[in-house]
Amino acid sequence: MSLPNDPIERLIALLARTPGLGRRSARRAVLRMLMKPEETMLPLAEALTAAAEAVRPCQVCGNLDAQSPCGICTDPRRDRHLVCVVEGVADLWALERAHAHHGLYHVLGGTLSPLAGIGPEELSIQPLLRRVEQEGVTEVIIALPATVDGTATAHYLTDRLKPADVAVTRLAQGVPMGGALDVLDEGTLAAALRARRPV
Amino acid sequence: MSLPNDPIERLIALLARTPGLGRRSARRAVLRMLMKPEETMLPLAEALTAAAEAVRPCQVCGNLDAQSPCGICTDPRRDRHLVCVVEGVADLWALERAHAHHGLYHVLGGTLSPLAGIGPEELSIQPLLRRVEQEGVTEVIIALPATVDGTATAHYLTDRLKPADVAVTRLAQGVPMGGALDVLDEGTLAAALRARRPV
Ligand SMILES: [Zn+2]
Ligand SMILES: [Zn+2]
Repeated sequence: MSLPNDPIERLIALLARTPGLGRRSARRAVLRMLMKPEETMLPLAEALTAAAEAVRPCQVCGNLDAQSPCGICTDPRRDRHLVCVVEGVADLWALERAHAHHGLYHVLGGTLSPLAGIGPEELSIQPLLRRVEQEGVTEVIIALPATVDGTATAHYLTDRLKPADVAVTRLAQGVPMGGALDVLDEGTLAAALRARRPV
Repeated sequence: MSLPNDPIERLIALLARTPGLGRRSARRAVLRMLMKPEETMLPLAEALTAAAEAVRPCQVCGNLDAQSPCGICTDPRRDRHLVCVVEGVADLWALERAHAHHGLYHVLGGTLSPLAGIGPEELSIQPLLRRVEQEGVTEVIIALPATVDGTATAHYLTDRLKPADVAVTRLAQGVPMGGALDVLDEGTLAAALRARRPV
């Protein structure tokens, strides 16, 4: 999509691409920001640039952070024997906001989906198996969405983890069917994690 | 409000200040943008900086534009005898989107509001009178909101414009009571402008 040259129209068009903001909201936001550009637009521009330059995927777990390995992977207070497998970074952040998990994470990067052509090679499964084998992991908590693909992926992971000497658990029922994790309230997430059970 | 130092949290906090975006939407937007930072975050940062640096109020009409006098004030196809008075730039932009007005504008910067301590000196009224006297304006269209303050301001302007040799009209009924102009659909705005009548 080509962008207008006029700086106001260009900014509206780019801001309107933000998920959750339509064109009308983007126009209002720009107008409001133009009332105090130094206090609103320049700090936001700097924060965007800083984040774009600093943030990268953690080479260990797949989290997004300004350092790699990320702040969670390098936190000495974390239980390194416990790894929680999530579909994406949004779910990792949701679990962190729930303060429910004191171990590490592993971001799978999606779920298996034969229809969408997503097989095991497209996901971060080999790195997970390697971590479990080499890093003394004693429990893998599977925190994937309760969708068809999420459930199938959980079964697949359980099979692949069988040869390893590791407990495999999943979030307790309480996660709504077909629901995304990152829209759940923190209490529900924390309760589901506490009541996790063996697969 | 102090901002977090972590680049991701800082960006979320700043983006969450955007009118229309809550904290949850800001978090999702940032996560989505971090998937393709070069394509999403850097262009947005550049557009914000460019707009903050280039855009200023038009010294003639009060519109916001990358040039002053603005693109409307300098457009030779515009009817310079016709000036439409609006409360703010949002209303000017709404009328422009309706393609209903082929004259110039004058942004008042608000409406008279004794309760809020906004008197004639706080608004761009003297500059309007000067334009009418010195620039051959033959009609002033008052396009203020149909609120108590907007109506009172329209009456005040009509009084102040009496000595000048100028027709004073206002938008036809059709603008909903108490409604802001910039949320109206373009057809309603265009019809109200076409059916304008003398005050
Ligand atoms: Zn990590
Ligand atoms: Zn102008």
